[in-house]
Amino acid sequence: MKVVKFGGSSLASAQQLEKVLDIVKADPERKFVVVSAPGKRDSQDTKVTDALIQYYKHYVAEKNVTADQEWIIERYQAMSDELGLKPKVMTKIAQAIKDLAKLPIQDNLFLYDSFLAAGEDNNAKLIAAYFNQNGLPAVYVHPKEAGITVTPEPGNAQIIPSSYDRIEKLRGYDEVVVIPGFFGVTAEGDICTFSRGGSDITGSIVAAGVKADLYENFTDVDGIFSAHPGIIKNPQSISELTYREMRELAYAGFTVLHDEALIPAYRGRIPLVIKNTNNPSHPGTKIVLKHSRNQQPVVGISADDGFVSITISKYLMNREIGFGRKVLQILEDLNIGFEHIPTGIDDMSVIIRERQLTPIKEEEILRQLTHKLEVDHAEIERDFSILMIVGENMKSHIGVTATAAKALSDKGINIEMISQGSSEVSILFVIKTAQKNAAIQALYEAFFPKN
Amino acid sequence: MKVVKFGGSSLASAQQLEKVLDIVKADPERKFVVVSAPGKRDSQDTKVTDALIQYYKHYVAEKNVTADQEWIIERYQAMSDELGLKPKVMTKIAQAIKDLAKLPIQDNLFLYDSFLAAGEDNNAKLIAAYFNQNGLPAVYVHPKEAGITVTPEPGNAQIIPSSYDRIEKLRGYDEVVVIPGFFGVTAEGDICTFSRGGSDITGSIVAAGVKADLYENFTDVDGIFSAHPGIIKNPQSISELTYREMRELAYAGFTVLHDEALIPAYRGRIPLVIKNTNNPSHPGTKIVLKHSRNQQPVVGISADDGFVSITISKYLMNREIGFGRKVLQILEDLNIGFEHIPTGIDDMSVIIRERQLTPIKEEEILRQLTHKLEVDHAEIERDFSILMIVGENMKSHIGVTATAAKALSDKGINIEMISQGSSEVSILFVIKTAQKNAAIQALYEAFFPKN
Repeated sequence: MKVVKFGGSSLASAQQLEKVLDIVKADPERKFVVVSAPGKRDSQDTKVTDALIQYYKHYVAEKNVTADQEWIIERYQAMSDELGLKPKVMTKIAQAIKDLAKLPIQDNLFLYDSFLAAGEDNNAKLIAAYFNQNGLPAVYVHPKEAGITVTPEPGNAQIIPSSYDRIEKLRGYDEVVVIPGFFGVTAEGDICTFSRGGSDITGSIVAAGVKADLYENFTDVDGIFSAHPGIIKNPQSISELTYREMRELAYAGFTVLHDEALIPAYRGRIPLVIKNTNNPSHPGTKIVLKHSRNQQPVVGISADDGFVSITISKYLMNREIGFGRKVLQILEDLNIGFEHIPTGIDDMSVIIRERQLTPIKEEEILRQLTHKLEVDHAEIERDFSILMIVGENMKSHIGVTATAAKALSDKGINIEMISQGSSEVSILFVIKTAQKNAAIQALYEAFFPKN
Repeated sequence: MKVVKFGGSSLASAQQLEKVLDIVKADPERKFVVVSAPGKRDSQDTKVTDALIQYYKHYVAEKNVTADQEWIIERYQAMSDELGLKPKVMTKIAQAIKDLAKLPIQDNLFLYDSFLAAGEDNNAKLIAAYFNQNGLPAVYVHPKEAGITVTPEPGNAQIIPSSYDRIEKLRGYDEVVVIPGFFGVTAEGDICTFSRGGSDITGSIVAAGVKADLYENFTDVDGIFSAHPGIIKNPQSISELTYREMRELAYAGFTVLHDEALIPAYRGRIPLVIKNTNNPSHPGTKIVLKHSRNQQPVVGISADDGFVSITISKYLMNREIGFGRKVLQILEDLNIGFEHIPTGIDDMSVIIRERQLTPIKEEEILRQLTHKLEVDHAEIERDFSILMIVGENMKSHIGVTATAAKALSDKGINIEMISQGSSEVSILFVIKTAQKNAAIQALYEAFFPKN
């Protein structure tokens, strides 16, 4: 039994929906379909979700919303017309879109979430109708009915664990079950959306709930590449990744799936595959708990920008019990998380994401280091990138660090910092952002040699 | 103007003292001589300091101390006889040794320090007399008279900064000034000893005080080797080291000078040279503030054993602001300092010295990590060594890491962790202790190739 999730670009037009129908029909195991809202048909187009945000803004400002409603309804209507659907489903959808403007504005914590969720919700209705009319018995199931109960945190709903038992009952349906992604329902019955990557989270939750054999996540790419295609021309695509590898890659710039979306499937021990709606015969990238066979040591190379280093020197620092803790305390009091803390004997650096800093926070950090901790020197250095080489199998390949360091040094790239060994899955380099692309090139050539 | 310090093995016998006289005479700039207590003449011998400890123990236990006194007096007497000194100095020394047994036992915080310090103090008297009798006008100056005022912390005296101005007045002497090392005098006039490396500290303080051009520290080795001679056969000796390099090497196993001894000279910007009393024509190892010329990238390779790693995993650890600080807080509450904290995304290791652990502390760490911080996994792994390659010039040699990693991997040595970049002076590897010697061999061959 498989859970299939389709992203917005896979559901943007009648033509795309035909591909979706073929995909679901092609495998009788595909019993659960989780859908996003219709995405852009072309680069000039507006996403339905963005149109709903406009609609919401006009509504709460008590402006006329007729044009907003009409644009959204027309968006669904066009698909319905092209697919030749019977009018019944569009009557329901149009009513649902209009009914949003009847929701109370005052003291309604969930108003924004209710507007947003309508994109997915109505698309699920339309798709279920389309499946039914084309020989694929299907049923639209609202998250409330599906049992997806969440915490009442608008825009950041968390699944309530008891939901899984209710979701499991969906296995009782004979038809294909079509569920809108991106939101759940609180215990009080309010619509509440997940954070970023919302429909992926729903797919992951449903897969865990129905104990799927596989969670198929259909996007518009042939899976995950071993390096960023904007930097490496035609990079290899990865056939198999572990959850740990995926998470390490996601940390430094790989954004195919948001890592929060992985948690329910990971905990439910459900393998996941990322496939391409436009090229369904491509095997895609499978994300598994454990590699099925011997892999090459490095599966992917990722990089992320926007890091700064707070470098601190103090003579005899390492004799001072509590020094490192106090440095982290200063940051924590300013609500700043750290990424890495490479340490020397009398030196310590704290790598943080630059977006966490403001001029006032910077000044405060340096002031406290100098006056409270009496350091000899403290400085904030900018324009660093983190480069990661990832692979569960690296541990058993002794020479990986040597190969990587040599590849970088041969290209004249200075390694500002290396952190290896805490995670068995990755080696992390800090380099100057100006050298990032050259560094990725060098590592890609070293670990993915052309045959 | 130079301050010369001689260690115990340089002062163990009349034969050794003759070498010392020759050394001081050879350079009229050698105006200040700091001396240790007489060391062992051979491996079966007893150090005077150890004999003084016995004497102290018997004295506080109210046992008969005559034999202790006689042994110590005889030790000086033998040297005096061999050197043909006039009896006057031995009369003073014998009285001083006997007078120790007149010091109050009750409420005397400084009794032990007074006994210990007698080894250096009386040796200084003897050496000053010897110099005088052999054509080198010299004067014995007690630390009280020299102005070496210290905090009243027995066994851990700290110099009081105002001392330096008084010490500077020693420049007024025309004679060679002979000062006993290892102790100062409190504001109340009590004898109080320094911590480990005590005579080196005195030399360093005097050098800073008299604003010496050079602090010559005479030992029984030809300076500092680039790697441990017990592991590398005939290692190169280092001609020039910076204070920072010295301190990094001292951290991981190089123990020629205790790092606390370096502080006054370092702060006074006095260069230091480590030389061999038994081979004074060897240039030794000079320790400077800044390299005088272009050095090879790596000056030394050091290693130290007895490290453990507390490895911690928690899914989404790096999203949790304050997590790292809380881990360090747990350790700090148990009075445990950390050495290094390599971090992955969901993983963190804390490297600590094993001697800081007890079974109860270990259990408490794991308990708190599991219950208070709710980690997914926490474990204490043992038998790690830290391996450091040190050199101020590494930063400008891009390939150093690559060379080191390749050398280790070629010998099949697994790098458990690397920390590079926080200190510009060193690269640190954590490896299994069982592979330490092979690792040092591999690195030595890589960075100190045979010509």
